[in-house]
Amino acid sequence: MIRATADQEYYELTSPTLLPKASGFLWNEKMMIHMNCRGYAVAQFMQPEPAKYSHAPNLEAKTFMQPEQPYYAHHPGRFVYVKDEESGEIFSAPYEPVRVPADDYTFAVGKSDILWTVKCKGIQIEMRLTLPKAEAMELWAVKVKNLSGERRKLSIYPYFTVGYMSWMNQSGEYHEELQGIVCSSITPYQKYQEYDKIKDFNDKTFLLADRKPDAWEVNQEAFEGEGGITSPSAIGQEELAKGDALYETPAAVLQYRVDLNPGAEEAYRFLFGAANNEGQIAQIRSDYFLNKNASGEDGFVLAGREYDQYIREGRGCIEIATPDPDLDNFVNHWLPRQMYYHGQTNRLSTDPQTRNFLQDHMGMSYIKPQLAREAFLIALSQQKSNGAMPDGIILHKDAELKYINQVPHTDHCVWLPICLSTYLDETNDYSLLEEKVPYADQAEAETVYEHIHKAMQWLAGDRDERGLNYINQGDWCDPMNMVGYKGKGVSGWLTIATAYAFQVWADICDNSGRPEAAQDYRAAAEETNEAVNRYLWDGDWYARGITDDNVVFGISKDREGRIFINPQGWSLLSGAADEEKKEKLLRAVTEQLETPYGVEKLAPSYTSMREDVGRVTQKHPGSAENGAVYNHAAAFYIYGLYAVGERDNAYRLLRKMLPGPSLDDIEQRGQLPIFIPNYYRGAYRQFPRTAGRSSHLFNTGTVPWVYRCLIDGLFGVQGTKEGIRVSPQLPGHWNEAAVTREFRGATLHVDIRRDAAASQTEVYAEGELLPDGVLRDVQPGKTYRVQVKLPGGA
Amino acid sequence: MIRATADQEYYELTSPTLLPKASGFLWNEKMMIHMNCRGYAVAQFMQPEPAKYSHAPNLEAKTFMQPEQPYYAHHPGRFVYVKDEESGEIFSAPYEPVRVPADDYTFAVGKSDILWTVKCKGIQIEMRLTLPKAEAMELWAVKVKNLSGERRKLSIYPYFTVGYMSWMNQSGEYHEELQGIVCSSITPYQKYQEYDKIKDFNDKTFLLADRKPDAWEVNQEAFEGEGGITSPSAIGQEELAKGDALYETPAAVLQYRVDLNPGAEEAYRFLFGAANNEGQIAQIRSDYFLNKNASGEDGFVLAGREYDQYIREGRGCIEIATPDPDLDNFVNHWLPRQMYYHGQTNRLSTDPQTRNFLQDHMGMSYIKPQLAREAFLIALSQQKSNGAMPDGIILHKDAELKYINQVPHTDHCVWLPICLSTYLDETNDYSLLEEKVPYADQAEAETVYEHIHKAMQWLAGDRDERGLNYINQGDWCDPMNMVGYKGKGVSGWLTIATAYAFQVWADICDNSGRPEAAQDYRAAAEETNEAVNRYLWDGDWYARGITDDNVVFGISKDREGRIFINPQGWSLLSGAADEEKKEKLLRAVTEQLETPYGVEKLAPSYTSMREDVGRVTQKHPGSAENGAVYNHAAAFYIYGLYAVGERDNAYRLLRKMLPGPSLDDIEQRGQLPIFIPNYYRGAYRQFPRTAGRSSHLFNTGTVPWVYRCLIDGLFGVQGTKEGIRVSPQLPGHWNEAAVTREFRGATLHVDIRRDAAASQTEVYAEGELLPDGVLRDVQPGKTYRVQVKLPGGA
Repeated sequence: MIRATADQEYYELTSPTLLPKASGFLWNEKMMIHMNCRGYAVAQFMQPEPAKYSHAPNLEAKTFMQPEQPYYAHHPGRFVYVKDEESGEIFSAPYEPVRVPADDYTFAVGKSDILWTVKCKGIQIEMRLTLPKAEAMELWAVKVKNLSGERRKLSIYPYFTVGYMSWMNQSGEYHEELQGIVCSSITPYQKYQEYDKIKDFNDKTFLLADRKPDAWEVNQEAFEGEGGITSPSAIGQEELAKGDALYETPAAVLQYRVDLNPGAEEAYRFLFGAANNEGQIAQIRSDYFLNKNASGEDGFVLAGREYDQYIREGRGCIEIATPDPDLDNFVNHWLPRQMYYHGQTNRLSTDPQTRNFLQDHMGMSYIKPQLAREAFLIALSQQKSNGAMPDGIILHKDAELKYINQVPHTDHCVWLPICLSTYLDETNDYSLLEEKVPYADQAEAETVYEHIHKAMQWLAGDRDERGLNYINQGDWCDPMNMVGYKGKGVSGWLTIATAYAFQVWADICDNSGRPEAAQDYRAAAEETNEAVNRYLWDGDWYARGITDDNVVFGISKDREGRIFINPQGWSLLSGAADEEKKEKLLRAVTEQLETPYGVEKLAPSYTSMREDVGRVTQKHPGSAENGAVYNHAAAFYIYGLYAVGERDNAYRLLRKMLPGPSLDDIEQRGQLPIFIPNYYRGAYRQFPRTAGRSSHLFNTGTVPWVYRCLIDGLFGVQGTKEGIRVSPQLPGHWNEAAVTREFRGATLHVDIRRDAAASQTEVYAEGELLPDGVLRDVQPGKTYRVQVKLPGGA
Repeated sequence: MIRATADQEYYELTSPTLLPKASGFLWNEKMMIHMNCRGYAVAQFMQPEPAKYSHAPNLEAKTFMQPEQPYYAHHPGRFVYVKDEESGEIFSAPYEPVRVPADDYTFAVGKSDILWTVKCKGIQIEMRLTLPKAEAMELWAVKVKNLSGERRKLSIYPYFTVGYMSWMNQSGEYHEELQGIVCSSITPYQKYQEYDKIKDFNDKTFLLADRKPDAWEVNQEAFEGEGGITSPSAIGQEELAKGDALYETPAAVLQYRVDLNPGAEEAYRFLFGAANNEGQIAQIRSDYFLNKNASGEDGFVLAGREYDQYIREGRGCIEIATPDPDLDNFVNHWLPRQMYYHGQTNRLSTDPQTRNFLQDHMGMSYIKPQLAREAFLIALSQQKSNGAMPDGIILHKDAELKYINQVPHTDHCVWLPICLSTYLDETNDYSLLEEKVPYADQAEAETVYEHIHKAMQWLAGDRDERGLNYINQGDWCDPMNMVGYKGKGVSGWLTIATAYAFQVWADICDNSGRPEAAQDYRAAAEETNEAVNRYLWDGDWYARGITDDNVVFGISKDREGRIFINPQGWSLLSGAADEEKKEKLLRAVTEQLETPYGVEKLAPSYTSMREDVGRVTQKHPGSAENGAVYNHAAAFYIYGLYAVGERDNAYRLLRKMLPGPSLDDIEQRGQLPIFIPNYYRGAYRQFPRTAGRSSHLFNTGTVPWVYRCLIDGLFGVQGTKEGIRVSPQLPGHWNEAAVTREFRGATLHVDIRRDAAASQTEVYAEGELLPDGVLRDVQPGKTYRVQVKLPGGA
């Protein structure tokens, strides 16, 4: 079973085999841990690049986070083996590695903790994970309870994977004085220039216990013996051998022998994480286990509370009550949390892609606008004086552009006005436009207005003679890398997005007292839309682009990659599509791209390389950019649907982004509904068996766009220069909804109902009709009661 | 048990748990496979860089080959699961992954095949692996025999790991028309410039069968189910589900249902490897399984025979019969095979380190001197016109200097005359010196003589005011990277080695009619030795070097890294050490560096970073360069011992390189005596538990030096300008030995015996005394009977 708890604090799963890859994730200022329901874990921390303290059993590639990550017997994990001393029987919690089916199993994913309760053979094991706020360390609380009617003699063995740490140097041993295990390694390097970086790395992995263990093992091979990880030979012995690891794969295993009367319980706590030296580890032990405050609470307790507080700061700005309780739960609790994660961690990257960084902070505008403001200023300080934005934003002095950020993309500028507009809607802080910021290549600072103006001019200039924007080696779609690498190919989507960016910027110009500039940009947008309609309209939808060899693609003649979602959604935003075109493209999307799991990014998925389009065509059909239900693109489209008032269409697709509510649906996707993954597997019409599966990757630009769909679209509570415009677009089958909106320090209680008497939407504030639906002069600290009457009620 | 077969064709191990990491290796012109006794495998092929067709379950780092490689449940392997259809019991051959102890188990490592015979539950499984000569493909023959007295209904499931192939694109399915499984992937890349390389990669993994299977599974997860790899759920079903893998981890599993009368046997053959496309795979199927020659043999049979022939071409130039049968077996069969492997594969690298490349071809001089000659010319064509040798030799147009070859080392030149001298000893082909070769930076060719002269001048010039050679970021010891990176530090070893190189080169100058040059180089050698004695003699041994800050290290005052083997061994070769110094340093080595497993490279092993020495001090104590019994260095030392007539000392240490003969010794090392590993774990006095363990890495410059120890030292059958000098140095406890020596087309049967009447060594050819021990005017095609009388017989 899968359910939200009554207090909406947890999502629960009651079987480890129902959704074997189901997971939760926690993060803090230093690290992220992705915890699988069966006990597998991926934990990364920053120093400054992502690093690990719990490794695979072989030498892993350093890479960006991968979707649909495979698990295997020796995948890093956190487990507790339990042995009945009398019968010799063993099982493990939460499920791996022994895989004995439990009598009762709950995996509960919370906002600031993850909790398992496993009942097996009359024993209950509870495991709870939380993090401190600012250290690369896991806080584990484990409880063992005797549920049977008789006294039980047990050994419990907390097992923490350490794994293959380094080919240069790795070892591990138990330290009596620390009451724990310390595994040491040296990050491999070959050039002496790297020594200065690696010497300060937190290359030690520690496991500290609040109770003295009876025995331990630090040697993976000795622990497993011929029994292997599923039935370690060492557990068959009375006591672990207290071994060490010398250039051998380390593991951190403790043994506690416990004698439990019926109903009795024992509790253990552990700290597992990374450190630079033993002095630090001793300090951690003091801070978390030894020192207590006046109330007798130790650091472990305080850290958990502080962390919970830290996470709870990441609230959104709406709270909803609708006919769709799953939506309510997701929007009120999980969606802002996922957005907050992005804004706070920058995806555990020191060089986030520029478009990601801007959109992540578009989302942060709803949560901590001050942080968003700072982020925009950082981004602009790395802009070139010719207006071009870099491919990634450097966030650390030792950072450099890596992976995909070494490939030139042409879309980064369009995100500036688009993301900024959300910040301005939320805050009305137009003073930001007058802030002075230097350029990457020019110390002399100019205003933010001037920066963005230059970005827009860069977009206007980076075009061919038809007025279409060059794509170079990619736009929003990274692997569309061979459309225009010779310098001629253009991006249909980017051209359309540029028209939209011009319009958004025109509004900002107007709102900041620059009507002439506004007029120029509106004209430029119109001109752009004309070029789009002239060169890219294929009869029933917009093409995706035109290659270096002047071949239009993403059109009806194409066997694969016939239609792409992005040009369609953005044409609704830019206004390129007139009513007739709109009807046609909506139909084409529904017929060709919509699936039970959302709209696909393109269809049919490419099944072989198309050299004039590029790497996207080589990606697995239905995966990531090649035909997945790529939620980021789907969210753009939905936002476009709301922009043109397609409320039912929009709601239907919005709802498909969340797994569920039906169990079948959740099972096919394989994910708990606690985050929106970057994609669900697509190619639904080509490979139905795998379609719908979650990528399990929660790093995605989707979330702020979903939030914008809610704020600007579904619930219609978007900020304006004057105040807040209330214009809900509830789907036809909803008769009511309530929204509490935090806005510029005020609170609006918005009650939305269908009313048979209303011929059009009527908005009342404190009982008074707002003719244009805009509540003006919103006062901080005040509470407003807003009533909305929608036409069409029974 | 561990034993050589009577015909010396195989080394056998009769338990998979006795030496769990014991392995054999096969290679051909395209690939290498390292096969573990329990069924795990590491296979690599060249395209042009090393690639895999059988992968780990996660994204692996691309790296140079690692020592002491850890295995784990899902490590790539080749297994056969066997299920009794009636009892439902399963086991697997050879041992993994089910790990049911066999009633009888043999792992037999041959020269050109690897063979298991496993008897379990009344069933015998035989698995035989061989390779074709020139393709990246494994040839497997599997036989199933009913040993029990009753009819047996079985299913057998050949299982070949495919693993995590690519995050871009991976899949797999059964192809009816190919009678096999094809798994496809695309090597991940992000920059379009890489597409041109990857598009021709052999990114498909295939498994073809000579008999039609009853069922199959291509989906790892579906195959395992909740049973996991140790007891796959799919095997519990009557038939495998015939599934496929769509962006899921693929596996190649077949099922054959078989009904066996008592004593009956069924045979199956499989091809497992890499290909670019299905057309190629179909062609392979035709070539190996469908087409037959006049004798009814198919390509599978012919390929095995051709491969055996290919391997047998790698014979050495001596065959010995001594009081030490283990030595005889190793020297007659395995040592030349390992040497041949190096010369043929260049360690599966497209940019072998220059010193490795030269020494590997020093070894090839004994087997295929023509190939060694070509290799020397290639290396010299990449020399700079200032005499400097590059850090690596580029062997493929797409190759570039990688890993350690990007770090500047100063020793590469010394290997030129040293390695060449072996070629000249073997062939007397002094015409090589007059070959004209261009330089890397100069098209105008000069003679090999001129090239090496310039290399020697480069060494003579790259020195400080004391006449000691700069070390820069490393010499033979790669990670000794911070001794001289500021441009001042010097290498003691390299200075001594330079003196030796000058002497060797002086001999070559003499032999090629350049007596004046010879005289100059002899003087230069002497001068160098004087500098060495002035600045580096520490009282009881030679120091290893002097740092940038003028600190002498590798001396008695040092707490760690007090003594290094290399300066000692090479001082015996260069003549720096006079009789008194020799006695002292021999004693120091014995006392401080000798262990039951050989001499350590340095002692005590460093346990923490010493910043003025560098990365070597950060490597794990007792591992690779930091205090291991590093066999390459040990071999230099032994060669030095023979050079000064230390026959007993030399033999004792030589013998320690081979695991065994005692079982205890082999167990501690964990390796079959079929190759010399690059190291045995050292730090014997610091960490005795792990000391002696084999690295299991067979890539090492050790082997040609061991061969030189045998040819030039122990058996004393070294070529000279005039012929061959016979001057054996049998250890004192040997009374006799016989050597058949292939030399310049002639065959010498050398019979060596102690003779109480001999007061000194007396050499007779065809009954005639050779006063100086040199047999002159050796005629190709002729056979010579040589008798050696050694003093000291009973």
